[in-house]
Amino acid sequence: MEKVTLDDAFDSFDEPWSPRLAGALNGQEVKLAKAEGEFVWHEHEDADEMFLVTDGRLRIEFREADDVVLEAGELLVVPRSVEHRPVAEPTAEMLLFEPSGTENTGGVESELASEVRELE
Amino acid sequence: MEKVTLDDAFDSFDEPWSPRLAGALNGQEVKLAKAEGEFVWHEHEDADEMFLVTDGRLRIEFREADDVVLEAGELLVVPRSVEHRPVAEPTAEMLLFEPSGTENTGGVESELASEVRELE
Repeated sequence: MEKVTLDDAFDSFDEPWSPRLAGALNGQEVKLAKAEGEFVWHEHEDADEMFLVTDGRLRIEFREADDVVLEAGELLVVPRSVEHRPVAEPTAEMLLFEPSGTENTGGVESELASEVRELE
Repeated sequence: MEKVTLDDAFDSFDEPWSPRLAGALNGQEVKLAKAEGEFVWHEHEDADEMFLVTDGRLRIEFREADDVVLEAGELLVVPRSVEHRPVAEPTAEMLLFEPSGTENTGGVESELASEVRELE
């Protein structure tokens, strides 16, 4: 069993919106992501998604609810089928918990669409 | 949607080994727990379990592998059916991520057995 040290893991990559796999359990994945500026509006039809911000500031916008602003040490669960747009102000680092195979854009075509990659 | 601020949530309770529910998603639960000293040896037959330490120091002992020591900002996934014993040195705060209904002692009878409680 290998532990993951978040500081080292976040230091190992720079690309925003390019999630790295930190762990897998019970059909779910724990991913690390860096964020910069606006992501795309999207939803995950079959996947609830948890955001846990560890650095910076991430605003999550919703079509039909008030924005939620997350700073380091704050988490939010976004239920499946709720359209949302993460916006880093101006950058953020976060853990994501979601089912294995969840696409970062929920299938929306975008240059920001990215497969999850292994940590190096 | 309500965010959870970890500092406030950890300030809202004192009991060690008494997990609080911070979120639920995809049949899984995110729990907050405080730890003090030794827990009981146990395993979860059908549940992988993730520990993410946010404060203090938690040593996780295994019957057939080296101990893993987690400090703030470190995480470990303990696979199902792997017997383990968490030991806080001397205290720790952590997030746990595991299937809904997972018992903290894995069914082992102990005065430390505790249902998950709602955050207040």
